[in-house]
Amino acid sequence: MTMKVGVIGGSGYTGGELLRLLYNHPKVEVSVVTSRKLAGKDVWKVHRHLKGFYDLKFVEPEMKYFEECDVAFTAVPHGEAMKYVPQLLEVGIKVVDLSADYRLPKDVYEKVYGLKHEGYVEAVYGLTELHRDEIAKANLVANPGCYPTGCILAVAPIAKYAERVVFDCKSGITGAGVKPTEFTHYPNLHESVVPYKVTNHRHYYEIVQELKPFNSEIAVSFTPQVFPGSRGILTTSHIFLKENLSLEEIVRIYEDFYRDCYFVRLQDEVRLSYVRGSNFCDIALFKGEDRIVAVSAIDNLVKGASGQAIQNMNVMMGWDEKLGLDFPPLFP
Amino acid sequence: MTMKVGVIGGSGYTGGELLRLLYNHPKVEVSVVTSRKLAGKDVWKVHRHLKGFYDLKFVEPEMKYFEECDVAFTAVPHGEAMKYVPQLLEVGIKVVDLSADYRLPKDVYEKVYGLKHEGYVEAVYGLTELHRDEIAKANLVANPGCYPTGCILAVAPIAKYAERVVFDCKSGITGAGVKPTEFTHYPNLHESVVPYKVTNHRHYYEIVQELKPFNSEIAVSFTPQVFPGSRGILTTSHIFLKENLSLEEIVRIYEDFYRDCYFVRLQDEVRLSYVRGSNFCDIALFKGEDRIVAVSAIDNLVKGASGQAIQNMNVMMGWDEKLGLDFPPLFP
Amino acid sequence: MTMKVGVIGGSGYTGGELLRLLYNHPKVEVSVVTSRKLAGKDVWKVHRHLKGFYDLKFVEPEMKYFEECDVAFTAVPHGEAMKYVPQLLEVGIKVVDLSADYRLPKDVYEKVYGLKHEGYVEAVYGLTELHRDEIAKANLVANPGCYPTGCILAVAPIAKYAERVVFDCKSGITGAGVKPTEFTHYPNLHESVVPYKVTNHRHYYEIVQELKPFNSEIAVSFTPQVFPGSRGILTTSHIFLKENLSLEEIVRIYEDFYRDCYFVRLQDEVRLSYVRGSNFCDIALFKGEDRIVAVSAIDNLVKGASGQAIQNMNVMMGWDEKLGLDFPPLFP
Amino acid sequence: MTMKVGVIGGSGYTGGELLRLLYNHPKVEVSVVTSRKLAGKDVWKVHRHLKGFYDLKFVEPEMKYFEECDVAFTAVPHGEAMKYVPQLLEVGIKVVDLSADYRLPKDVYEKVYGLKHEGYVEAVYGLTELHRDEIAKANLVANPGCYPTGCILAVAPIAKYAERVVFDCKSGITGAGVKPTEFTHYPNLHESVVPYKVTNHRHYYEIVQELKPFNSEIAVSFTPQVFPGSRGILTTSHIFLKENLSLEEIVRIYEDFYRDCYFVRLQDEVRLSYVRGSNFCDIALFKGEDRIVAVSAIDNLVKGASGQAIQNMNVMMGWDEKLGLDFPPLFP
Repeated sequence: MTMKVGVIGGSGYTGGELLRLLYNHPKVEVSVVTSRKLAGKDVWKVHRHLKGFYDLKFVEPEMKYFEECDVAFTAVPHGEAMKYVPQLLEVGIKVVDLSADYRLPKDVYEKVYGLKHEGYVEAVYGLTELHRDEIAKANLVANPGCYPTGCILAVAPIAKYAERVVFDCKSGITGAGVKPTEFTHYPNLHESVVPYKVTNHRHYYEIVQELKPFNSEIAVSFTPQVFPGSRGILTTSHIFLKENLSLEEIVRIYEDFYRDCYFVRLQDEVRLSYVRGSNFCDIALFKGEDRIVAVSAIDNLVKGASGQAIQNMNVMMGWDEKLGLDFPPLFP
Repeated sequence: MTMKVGVIGGSGYTGGELLRLLYNHPKVEVSVVTSRKLAGKDVWKVHRHLKGFYDLKFVEPEMKYFEECDVAFTAVPHGEAMKYVPQLLEVGIKVVDLSADYRLPKDVYEKVYGLKHEGYVEAVYGLTELHRDEIAKANLVANPGCYPTGCILAVAPIAKYAERVVFDCKSGITGAGVKPTEFTHYPNLHESVVPYKVTNHRHYYEIVQELKPFNSEIAVSFTPQVFPGSRGILTTSHIFLKENLSLEEIVRIYEDFYRDCYFVRLQDEVRLSYVRGSNFCDIALFKGEDRIVAVSAIDNLVKGASGQAIQNMNVMMGWDEKLGLDFPPLFP
Repeated sequence: MTMKVGVIGGSGYTGGELLRLLYNHPKVEVSVVTSRKLAGKDVWKVHRHLKGFYDLKFVEPEMKYFEECDVAFTAVPHGEAMKYVPQLLEVGIKVVDLSADYRLPKDVYEKVYGLKHEGYVEAVYGLTELHRDEIAKANLVANPGCYPTGCILAVAPIAKYAERVVFDCKSGITGAGVKPTEFTHYPNLHESVVPYKVTNHRHYYEIVQELKPFNSEIAVSFTPQVFPGSRGILTTSHIFLKENLSLEEIVRIYEDFYRDCYFVRLQDEVRLSYVRGSNFCDIALFKGEDRIVAVSAIDNLVKGASGQAIQNMNVMMGWDEKLGLDFPPLFP
Repeated sequence: MTMKVGVIGGSGYTGGELLRLLYNHPKVEVSVVTSRKLAGKDVWKVHRHLKGFYDLKFVEPEMKYFEECDVAFTAVPHGEAMKYVPQLLEVGIKVVDLSADYRLPKDVYEKVYGLKHEGYVEAVYGLTELHRDEIAKANLVANPGCYPTGCILAVAPIAKYAERVVFDCKSGITGAGVKPTEFTHYPNLHESVVPYKVTNHRHYYEIVQELKPFNSEIAVSFTPQVFPGSRGILTTSHIFLKENLSLEEIVRIYEDFYRDCYFVRLQDEVRLSYVRGSNFCDIALFKGEDRIVAVSAIDNLVKGASGQAIQNMNVMMGWDEKLGLDFPPLFP
């Protein structure tokens, strides 16, 4: 028997990606997709690639449509999700929130995002590989940011040995959303790599929050950039260790850490095209005289957003975390 | 119970794509993958995106490995496939040949490809939408070329009303294979659209062969080009009609023609990203004062190669043609 | 002694390109650049690549700033240019208009562009290679559209022998301007070739206007597309001849036609990267059994806009047409 | 009166770029271009973009052809340049060597490049902004590597205040040369950012050599990557300071350092498209709580190779260093 799920905010890239992935999930069916702007319009006319897959029309984000749902995904901007999450929880719907609204403690959130947080409740941070047990018991999971997913997975196993990490991240432009801006204007990205929020991106706080429990003294630096491509985040983590470890020791540490993590693969080399369209995070490790470099590759819309959200739903429901996500990446 | 299938020539893009798609096919299991060059090597070490999906090693293309197979895919270059196909057929294995070796009559083939055809047998031309019934009864299906798939599907419904068609095709570079050449050298394609074999590409003969039965007098022109991208063929078909038809009439003709064809979708606009990674062929129709333009979009490695090959296998086995192929495209 | 020139509408790509090219022109100096939106702002802060090259600030498009100018370029949208051109002509300033406002006869323009033309005057159509003598005597030159430049140059020499031409054009996205739209949104173009205004682009009328004098019965079809790149238009011209000509004869016809045309180069193969950043139009010729294919390559912002505008200014002033434009393309 | 210059190794990207740039140099003329592989072939048939610009044919790299030259550029791979440089110097020809052969002390070179250095002589390291006075007196200038140019310029002004620098560099693929390889194969780079020689690229030694004189204790880390584009190197320099400096102080330090350096521009934001095709190095500075980030952008084939080589020639000859290089970048 299939379970019904709803998507709040289905007009963007993460909404479209949820619909793409959920179509092949063996245990759920999408029964409602909201969009304030597009209410009344056929879903497939907005997501043309989905023609033939969904008969649904977008509806207003009203609770009545969610009555039969057991799980809801909120794929709206930060500041918006907090309007819906408490209502959903109240009527007993489990929620995976893809926005930033529940990723940080209330006070940190309010400082970082410059917003008053209405309707704050505690959530589990949904980096599945780190918090699987708590996610299994949670009603609200705060799905991680795309950059934090790539950064934290790249460094968590070795964090306790590190004194400093510099994350230099390169993201595809879909992370900037469906709305055309100067940033997403084709000639402004073509043949370029564009740094932005060079020393002050808000994802920094998630990364630190998740790495500090491994090592309260770790120094973290983070710079995001976009590269000319649609999907994928390549994270180059320059790691300075407190003590010397051989590459073999380091590899063993990572292997142990991720032993039961289907979606993390250690590879000799990583490429965004080896994970595209999939929920995998590939990691390669390099040792120089000065530092360790851990390079991770994810698809920002899958492991960095909608795929991990589904992985989290699977864990929340007590299902195999691979359901609906167990297919090979699209290479090349 | 799963059926065993084999892949002859598994080291290239179409081989890798067969492996990607067959992993999620509910009725088959890949039991053998050959590569003369890579025999003994792990399949996933060549197709890194498949790490975790296959435990197989490449083997030499010897018949003994195929004993338990019911179906084989030959994904080797033209001139090579003819060495294996007769042997496979002889031991009762059904074959879908992705090379050009069985797409044309022997004499035409020998002239066009400048090769003596050893071991010629008649095959069914595997454009599924046109030859579904014959494919169902066939032991050997000649899987169409990538360009012909996009061209023929774009024009077949209207061919009998046309006096002239000019196909101007734009392909991703994966059509040129995995081997680095001047043609595939990054700086030679970046920021360019590159015509090649401008008036003499061999796929021309397949296109004509399939359109003539609809209209023996149709004049066909064909020019292939590569654009800066990996996957996809966009075919712009400039169609000059013998009689005037309204856009509504034309759309109705296409709708009728493709009524039972799950993998052909009529869309108001087509984009390669609406079909990427999938077996769909999207078609949009435009009417000017001078001509009809039918634009089709396929993923050259899926509907243009490995996806259609699986679709053909499904039909040959009497299964639902969607098996293993019923998932949404990867957009964007 | 340098001559002063002004640019009306200097904030877009063609305005920036005029500034880039005019900086190295030995006989002129840009003394005024207007922009209603950006008046008061430093030119280099809008065109960051020009930092160090210009001290000018944008000014309002008022005639007083042009008093010392001998020539003005109008690089504003169609419908806007007509507001300035008559005033400039009146005070004796020669004008090269890069908009569409003066390319067509008044009645055709009004029908095609759906606008009433205020201030119509006759202009010379500024395809330099075709109208050099008239340009030399003109006060107003209507600089051709980007597509027409590539199309007309590809076919003019052979037009009188042709009965039908199908132009299938692939343009870089800068042709769509600096303003972000869905069309220029990176993920919408990446890994795609996007047809638009498939049978009804307004540049059609310029192409026909210029080819008809060679052959009043020629049938012309035209479809524009964008490819994933910033600059360049590749035009694939499928030409059906009335009589059979050998490739040698055709090449000779083109060589004769362009004998004194520095900026047209016949090449064995064309690539957009062979002309990038330059004023060249490269042409390659191919002969099939069914047709001739003439492929032309231009940089849409140079020969397709600002470069040709400067070439026209040179001719209008009686200078060598190469002044300021005689430098090699940027490959790759 | 023009001076004659020769190019040894003219078939690659840096050779082609020398020819592109030297064409417009007011004081020199290229009189000889060598290529062992292509001797006898027209230069423009290899560099198609240069059709019409050069009548030369490639010749064998023999000294007799250089008799009339005052300056030679060696644009051959490392290990090859050392075969020609001593001969050229011996007959009184000044040399700018674009290979790595003379950038490091003999012993360091032999260790790093694993080659015995035949014909070692001391050269001046040709980062023009740092060594202008010595270059002016030199007969042999070792033109810097592309990565070192971007790295050193980004950090030199602040090096003495820094305790650690992490250089994370993103290069266009032309840096890998004209020869097709797996690395330059289009599908392997498209939609990817590819790290390589992650902790052991040989350019590291040049960077350290040039930064140590400012600060013998500076810790340097360096990781190169390619991004999907032809030209450009974006260097993200994560700089950890020994003492706290305000952004204003830092900007002043850079402004002072580069006061007389035409080709270094401080910008609020850098983009590779702001320097493309030009000899500029643009630098933007950012200050976070944890570090300074200096981002530099160069065109790897110009300031990172052939442009800087010409700038060095200009300085060696006592000319204005801008000769032949004073034109705006090609944006976008």
